Amino acid sequence: MGKGNGIDRRRLLTAGLAAGGAALAPRAVAGEGDPAILEVQDWTRYLGDGVQARPYGVPSEFEAHVVRRDVEWLTAATESSVNFTPIHELDGIITPNGLCFERHHAGIAEIDPADHRLMINGLVDQPLVFTMEDLKRLPRENRVYFLECAANSGMEWRGSQLNGAQYTHGMVHCVMYTGVPLRTILGEAGIKASGKWVLAEGADASVMTRSIPIEKAVDDCLVAFMMNGEALRPEQGYPLRLVVPGWEGNMWVKWLRRIEVGDLPWHQREETSKYTDLLPNGKARRFTWVMDVKSVITSPSPQMPISHGPGPLVISGLAWSGNGRITRVDVSLDGGRNWRRARIDGPSLPKALHRFYLDIDWDGRDLLLQSRAIDEDGFVQPSKEELRAVRGENSIYHNNGIQTWHVKPDGSSENVEVS
Amino acid sequence: MGKGNGIDRRRLLTAGLAAGGAALAPRAVAGEGDPAILEVQDWTRYLGDGVQARPYGVPSEFEAHVVRRDVEWLTAATESSVNFTPIHELDGIITPNGLCFERHHAGIAEIDPADHRLMINGLVDQPLVFTMEDLKRLPRENRVYFLECAANSGMEWRGSQLNGAQYTHGMVHCVMYTGVPLRTILGEAGIKASGKWVLAEGADASVMTRSIPIEKAVDDCLVAFMMNGEALRPEQGYPLRLVVPGWEGNMWVKWLRRIEVGDLPWHQREETSKYTDLLPNGKARRFTWVMDVKSVITSPSPQMPISHGPGPLVISGLAWSGNGRITRVDVSLDGGRNWRRARIDGPSLPKALHRFYLDIDWDGRDLLLQSRAIDEDGFVQPSKEELRAVRGENSIYHNNGIQTWHVKPDGSSENVEVS
Repeated sequence: MGKGNGIDRRRLLTAGLAAGGAALAPRAVAGEGDPAILEVQDWTRYLGDGVQARPYGVPSEFEAHVVRRDVEWLTAATESSVNFTPIHELDGIITPNGLCFERHHAGIAEIDPADHRLMINGLVDQPLVFTMEDLKRLPRENRVYFLECAANSGMEWRGSQLNGAQYTHGMVHCVMYTGVPLRTILGEAGIKASGKWVLAEGADASVMTRSIPIEKAVDDCLVAFMMNGEALRPEQGYPLRLVVPGWEGNMWVKWLRRIEVGDLPWHQREETSKYTDLLPNGKARRFTWVMDVKSVITSPSPQMPISHGPGPLVISGLAWSGNGRITRVDVSLDGGRNWRRARIDGPSLPKALHRFYLDIDWDGRDLLLQSRAIDEDGFVQPSKEELRAVRGENSIYHNNGIQTWHVKPDGSSENVEVS
Repeated sequence: MGKGNGIDRRRLLTAGLAAGGAALAPRAVAGEGDPAILEVQDWTRYLGDGVQARPYGVPSEFEAHVVRRDVEWLTAATESSVNFTPIHELDGIITPNGLCFERHHAGIAEIDPADHRLMINGLVDQPLVFTMEDLKRLPRENRVYFLECAANSGMEWRGSQLNGAQYTHGMVHCVMYTGVPLRTILGEAGIKASGKWVLAEGADASVMTRSIPIEKAVDDCLVAFMMNGEALRPEQGYPLRLVVPGWEGNMWVKWLRRIEVGDLPWHQREETSKYTDLLPNGKARRFTWVMDVKSVITSPSPQMPISHGPGPLVISGLAWSGNGRITRVDVSLDGGRNWRRARIDGPSLPKALHRFYLDIDWDGRDLLLQSRAIDEDGFVQPSKEELRAVRGENSIYHNNGIQTWHVKPDGSSENVEVS
């Protein structure tokens, strides 16, 4: 059984930096004295729970730390606030429904789907009202998309304020939606020639409203009722939300109850005093809908210290772009002086999260970890300095600057900036 | 607002069978008297839960019926039993972790990952033991795969015994796995020239063991620690399971603790008295690993009656093949006399579930619904008659025959067979 040679099973090979995913493994030789190998464990001795115990399953008790978290000082009331996806603990490109970050303006609306309606009105040939059952009779589609809040990384405009990828970049998630194309629903009502914009309205107590140009509405927007195979979660708009692929999350109206067709944008609160970007000259950028190309290293990171010594280390991160697919991610170990190409692994789908890895042999010294994504339109993720030179520091929105983690010899990490 | 014209908003257009996903929508005109439109609902009046309420989210209370279910008479003890994915309620291709069917032989092992080990021994140059931390230092991959129990649809060999897609076809799920290729781990240990098979062993009280040929072990098997982005669920093998893409679920050993390399298969209980298919002549098919091309209509189905009258109807289903991608699904409304090509929608990934739809205009009359899948190797899903002609009725395994639902004018459905 491989026991008995007395070699410390944690002794690791070091062999220089490995290229292209070919990092050497920890060479763990079965040593004497490890009770986890030598003794029969309780879970091998006794029967566990049967198949009636968990009609709807939950994570292991040993994963209780993998949860959404808020930052208390960010907002005055929890009903109009945000919490963050624990992206530092996750992998792959799918976010489990229970961990998708929440952003509410009046708390979670709890809607009985039997009493929910979607009205189509305004500049249409025939105003319509749909029940949930009506909508489920229309041809539907399945698409994987990321959703990012425009304010994700917003606290980083003025420096490194939040210590953890969950807090700096956790207002993002990625799921498979099932829904009806908005174009199908608008087509049923018939858009008048003068109809150039739609207003999406939510049924929650904030009655969230946003203007969307008709070109986007009939391009790839979905009226979704399912996420990752099951019904939307209440905090994600159950029973109905608008999916606006690649565009800022605030436009993905939850608890969707009405689509009005108009000839001009409405200039609601959420697209004037909010979700516009104040520039150094006092003017504001309006209608900054697309979420630009962006990436972040999720592990190691301040909440995910390296828990071992020098040797093989998996550097893992996420990249995404509202323009489409990610074509390349580079990673720097030295604060942007040198870059090496990361390995993108898993499905590469337009306007979805992409997972990347760089497998290295860590020498145990300080790292200044950065990632830089490039999308299929050729956009390159900028440095924070480049961003600030153009946009100043007045905004909290659309910060897609390159993030730096200072990894220390003890394995801990800190949110820093390099110049 | 579209009110006042007095037209019943449930009045539906009928326009003959629509082709290629272009079914007409329910034409629902906003009528007077619908309180769901005319009155302000509670969820628009009051604040809901804030962002601290649900660190790990759960489904809406209105979805409490979407759960795994078992069939009590199938097995003597719930610890060695099965429950079923509610595939009739789901859509898309991703199964939420909480709804993936369970099959246990000694109940759910509850393992502390700090005390879990993976041993590699047998015909290797260097026996090794890995901690969970060791494994997470190796280059990892993300892949979406279906997992089907070899006994899925097993009760259908001798007729239509279970009334619902959840029970006839619900021993299947599909998630994105993150893990280390088994070839990487075996490569660390070094496979001796005489090593032709591996034995995978679980840590639960049944100590599940299965033999796998080395060609498959080094092809696409993964040692997975995450599903759909988060840690494996306890009932799916937390903290470690073997992923054997396209092959029968029993081989995907949960709570994986040991891989032994040998020169011959071990002929353990689960590959001799179980998981072999007894033929009419008394001989048994051995090593029937690949899950053959298969499909089922999930809605409408016995647990998902049509809840409306004639008019547009979405027929939805799942298809999969252990050989690779699904290239085509046909649907019959008349028990196999005529077939029309269904629309496959969403990502088409090898050895993953595929979602298909046929959008029709239902005339309100009886339907004999069937689906027939074809995979990229050209395999065509057989009828139950064709299967029985070759394999008899002695087995409970590997039934991939075409399923028939008899849909009645009242919208209810029944599990039937047609000849």
